[in-house]
Amino acid sequence: MITRKNFLKNSAITAAGMMILPADVVFGRSMQNKVRLGFIGTGLRGQDHVELALRRDDVDIVAICDIQQVMIDATLKLFTDAKKPMPEVIKGDVHAYRKLLDRKDVDAVIIATPWEWHFPMAIDALKAGKHVGCEVIAASNLDELWTLVNTVEQTGLQYMMLENVCYRRDVMAIMNMVWKGMFGEMVHLQGGYQHDLRDVKFNDGIHPYGGGVEFGAKGFSEAQWRTQHSVNENGDLYPTHGIGPIAMLTDINRGNRFTSLVSFASKTRGLHEYIVKLGGENHPNAKVNFKLGDVVTTMIQTAQEETILLQHDTSLPRPYSLGFRVQGTKGLWMDVNQSLYIEGVSKNPDRWEAAKPYLEQYDHPLWKKFENDTIGAGHGGMDFFVLHEFVEAIKNNTPTPMDVYDAAAWTAITPLSKDSIAGKGKTMEFPDFTKGLWKSRKNTFGIIG
Amino acid sequence: MITRKNFLKNSAITAAGMMILPADVVFGRSMQNKVRLGFIGTGLRGQDHVELALRRDDVDIVAICDIQQVMIDATLKLFTDAKKPMPEVIKGDVHAYRKLLDRKDVDAVIIATPWEWHFPMAIDALKAGKHVGCEVIAASNLDELWTLVNTVEQTGLQYMMLENVCYRRDVMAIMNMVWKGMFGEMVHLQGGYQHDLRDVKFNDGIHPYGGGVEFGAKGFSEAQWRTQHSVNENGDLYPTHGIGPIAMLTDINRGNRFTSLVSFASKTRGLHEYIVKLGGENHPNAKVNFKLGDVVTTMIQTAQEETILLQHDTSLPRPYSLGFRVQGTKGLWMDVNQSLYIEGVSKNPDRWEAAKPYLEQYDHPLWKKFENDTIGAGHGGMDFFVLHEFVEAIKNNTPTPMDVYDAAAWTAITPLSKDSIAGKGKTMEFPDFTKGLWKSRKNTFGIIG
Repeated sequence: MITRKNFLKNSAITAAGMMILPADVVFGRSMQNKVRLGFIGTGLRGQDHVELALRRDDVDIVAICDIQQVMIDATLKLFTDAKKPMPEVIKGDVHAYRKLLDRKDVDAVIIATPWEWHFPMAIDALKAGKHVGCEVIAASNLDELWTLVNTVEQTGLQYMMLENVCYRRDVMAIMNMVWKGMFGEMVHLQGGYQHDLRDVKFNDGIHPYGGGVEFGAKGFSEAQWRTQHSVNENGDLYPTHGIGPIAMLTDINRGNRFTSLVSFASKTRGLHEYIVKLGGENHPNAKVNFKLGDVVTTMIQTAQEETILLQHDTSLPRPYSLGFRVQGTKGLWMDVNQSLYIEGVSKNPDRWEAAKPYLEQYDHPLWKKFENDTIGAGHGGMDFFVLHEFVEAIKNNTPTPMDVYDAAAWTAITPLSKDSIAGKGKTMEFPDFTKGLWKSRKNTFGIIG
Repeated sequence: MITRKNFLKNSAITAAGMMILPADVVFGRSMQNKVRLGFIGTGLRGQDHVELALRRDDVDIVAICDIQQVMIDATLKLFTDAKKPMPEVIKGDVHAYRKLLDRKDVDAVIIATPWEWHFPMAIDALKAGKHVGCEVIAASNLDELWTLVNTVEQTGLQYMMLENVCYRRDVMAIMNMVWKGMFGEMVHLQGGYQHDLRDVKFNDGIHPYGGGVEFGAKGFSEAQWRTQHSVNENGDLYPTHGIGPIAMLTDINRGNRFTSLVSFASKTRGLHEYIVKLGGENHPNAKVNFKLGDVVTTMIQTAQEETILLQHDTSLPRPYSLGFRVQGTKGLWMDVNQSLYIEGVSKNPDRWEAAKPYLEQYDHPLWKKFENDTIGAGHGGMDFFVLHEFVEAIKNNTPTPMDVYDAAAWTAITPLSKDSIAGKGKTMEFPDFTKGLWKSRKNTFGIIG
């Protein structure tokens, strides 16, 4: 088994950092027992991370920053409940976070703000010498992604996009099975973000979920900023939950890479109909023209000739489903029917069988090791791992399991899909953010030393 | 409810036929009580149709044609078992079928031969004044499809591609629900042909399914001809089972049409690995290079802005699944998890519920009416309907429910997907085989008068 220590030697980030920075910046920071965190953005998602960080003995939260008092108050209550020292509270305008970055005693920041702020905050943090753990997605366009990659390389600091679905328990069990060879060679993979967000995109301006059809200045929580993306953009706006696990299963940036992409968007009906249904035809928002197609379908080709299918479906009534399909030369798993088939293993030829016994049998070692720590953590426990892995990487001065190249490749799907749709299904070439390093990097996701 | 008689007045085929042929060719044939059929191709699929035709009092099978004695013998046994008059047997070389077409007492032919013969046989039959019921697919390329459309228009004869999945019981129940408005406006649809055909593509030369890795001259049944398409072609080779129901649900050629298509193909592993596994590395077929990607994914855009996803997956171990998804503004159905969700109807918000009670409640009137006739018919009974509808259309001199425009549009997916893949995911424009008639034609599929 490859240990994290061995892996360090192969790390492309470290190698890139060494070329530019004095070695002591990269290796000089001694192993540390504690990580001093600052939180930028303590809305509902930020609070999830704060709550998990407060559980840890190896984390000190020295400062938090938000522009809304209601979110600050809710966050401070978490400190009280956890009986932990109160952090410095930084508030003010949208650039107040820079005061947090001025603190010398902050090793790393967790960014959980509206999408469009992820990039400028990450860049400022890196330039201030802070490691960055950033919520999905990494940036808004390809130029920003290149800048992000270059900045991480130049500073030699850690950047991790906190994609939690890579740690979903069933997904990790399937990864375990794939890496044992049970599904054979990977051939075709599917995933996506199929989640009725209508009561996230619209609310009453007071409660985070539903109760009205307001958004933007009159909305609350995600409706304040997320909905506007559905007005302005047509593409796969939220690809990382689906693509993260698929990228790990296909060794993207580690012997493989995305090469091309095509997206198609369906008609746009769901959000308008929701407004009319709940708010009536005369509600001002009934006049808003939404650009986002209700179902956006994206195909991706890889250098190793796998095909990947992603779906983005957030404006229609439907049960939540990330729609995973992991298909290799020996069999396949699908999550929508909670079933799999493996030739020579499944008892009945050509018949689905329940995935559950396999998911239990091949439960990933990370889940076995940390099961107790996941209890109460968000999204079925998987939220524990993203913060945990980020903190451990900083403590041990080892690469994060998802790095800036992953963040860039996964996030690039959004601008590429928008351009493909605008070009009526034009085929888009993928940039190689690793500049060729993908050929030699090794996949060590989920390996525990 | 629109009756077939009303529909006749709107029929584009009839209208086109009237412009070219004397009216008596189109309308002059009086309502007839019996249809005299000739069968071209009596392999396993042809025998299915013969068996169903032998059950009918309104059909006389006057001649059969095949080039293999073993298939003729098996077919004649069906006549004996049914205690029906023996047909003329026409055999010889691959052009022997023309002798069948010379018979004046054949009203219509059923063609169930290898794909590449469908087109020339249909053209010859039409030119000989015979209606044509043809197995899927209709032709091999766009030129042939145009010739087929033009020939049907010029002769004013019936052409029906015998796509049985349009009559699958669950599919028809979903159609019934869609047409009642239960799923709202159609937004996104999926289907495909996901069927492990390895033991169809290869056999021992004696039995039709498996037992060896021979194909072509050394194979038997479909392996004699179908497998070669996997050697020569990379595309969605078999789109009609998936696209047929989807086309009917989205009014294709009846107020809507396919506008563009993109296909991606995965790596090619399954067939070679199957040969090596069963026949060993030294088997001559282990040297064959297969061109067909194991999983071919195709996206289609329609004029009414639905998106359609098709998958072709026939070379890997997997359970059979046509992978239907029918999604509208009010909810969706998927067949892989046998579930649906309809907003305001499903009891638990955002939760799948079993489709079965709905499929029973909304069982299509055609199935209710003909349930007894479907017993013992192939593919769960749905095979009954294709022959039935074809025979009824000829008897009543009414349009077939699937016509040459459908056959052309559905079959065109294959050559277009091949060109798209060859062009590295190039976007292909769809031809409009109706030459604009799609705008005024009405969808009457499944309506019973």
